[in-house]
Amino acid sequence: MRFAIIAGTVVCALGVGLAASYSRATDPATETAAPIYGVTIPEGYRDWKFVAPAQEAPPLDELRAVLGNDIAIDAYRSGTLPFPDGSVLVKLAYKRKQSAEFAPATVPGAPTTVQVMVKDSKKYPDSHGWGFGRFINGKPVDQKQHETCLACHEGNVVDHDYVFTRYAP
Amino acid sequence: MRFAIIAGTVVCALGVGLAASYSRATDPATETAAPIYGVTIPEGYRDWKFVAPAQEAPPLDELRAVLGNDIAIDAYRSGTLPFPDGSVLVKLAYKRKQSAEFAPATVPGAPTTVQVMVKDSKKYPDSHGWGFGRFINGKPVDQKQHETCLACHEGNVVDHDYVFTRYAP
Repeated sequence: MRFAIIAGTVVCALGVGLAASYSRATDPATETAAPIYGVTIPEGYRDWKFVAPAQEAPPLDELRAVLGNDIAIDAYRSGTLPFPDGSVLVKLAYKRKQSAEFAPATVPGAPTTVQVMVKDSKKYPDSHGWGFGRFINGKPVDQKQHETCLACHEGNVVDHDYVFTRYAP
Repeated sequence: MRFAIIAGTVVCALGVGLAASYSRATDPATETAAPIYGVTIPEGYRDWKFVAPAQEAPPLDELRAVLGNDIAIDAYRSGTLPFPDGSVLVKLAYKRKQSAEFAPATVPGAPTTVQVMVKDSKKYPDSHGWGFGRFINGKPVDQKQHETCLACHEGNVVDHDYVFTRYAP
């Protein structure tokens, strides 16, 4: 009887192990990490504090907003650079659409991308401590697109710890 | 000796009383309530959750973002209309400015107005439960400008409880 229980446990453990392996390989829920950096969309980010809005000109023609977790917001407000480890920024982007109710206004249309920057100087020593993720419909875009992140941030905002967005008062 | 102390106290109390009266009449810190509605800029609003961005065309040429307190955000997320009493929305507006670092982007320039909507159906029975406040540099604009709020919201967004901004996913 004791043997039977132990055997059952082994079978069960193997089953879980197999299920987990299968899941890692093919389950869409696990296809959420960006190539190169392994960055994922952070849970609860839509509740984070507001950093600033922006507009992206055509052809993208988007309205955007950056939110930050508390570590990032504290760094912004205190003027701390570089951003400390644990800082996370999320940019939400939407097609810019004419308001049907107010002629001078354009407003968010369809969501386009969610873009994430994670500061972890141990994990990302080769990209100034930043990991990048760009997502469409919750899925990361391909490696080629992710290869463009670092070069653009390096090329333009080296003096602001590779972060474009400033805190809007 | 005891008389002297009491007299000193009376003089001191009078002094405080005079200072307070003077302050109520002229101190800029007390000139913070909007005409008509008495709405003030809510404390801590900059920590509130993000509702949506917008752009206002020239001549204002602004980037904007609306934040909401938890009651308003819960109403948005649950699709609750009308907004319940206690809902507060704050719109932040900035001059739209070319990014110096990224050609396709425009970003917040100088802050222009902070605009507030407060839902209190008992306090504002004549404006569908909403009180309005429009502020520049922390000071409410004049009564004439506040007279325009209700008519515009009534004329355009009666079907969304007089609120223009929709929640951006």
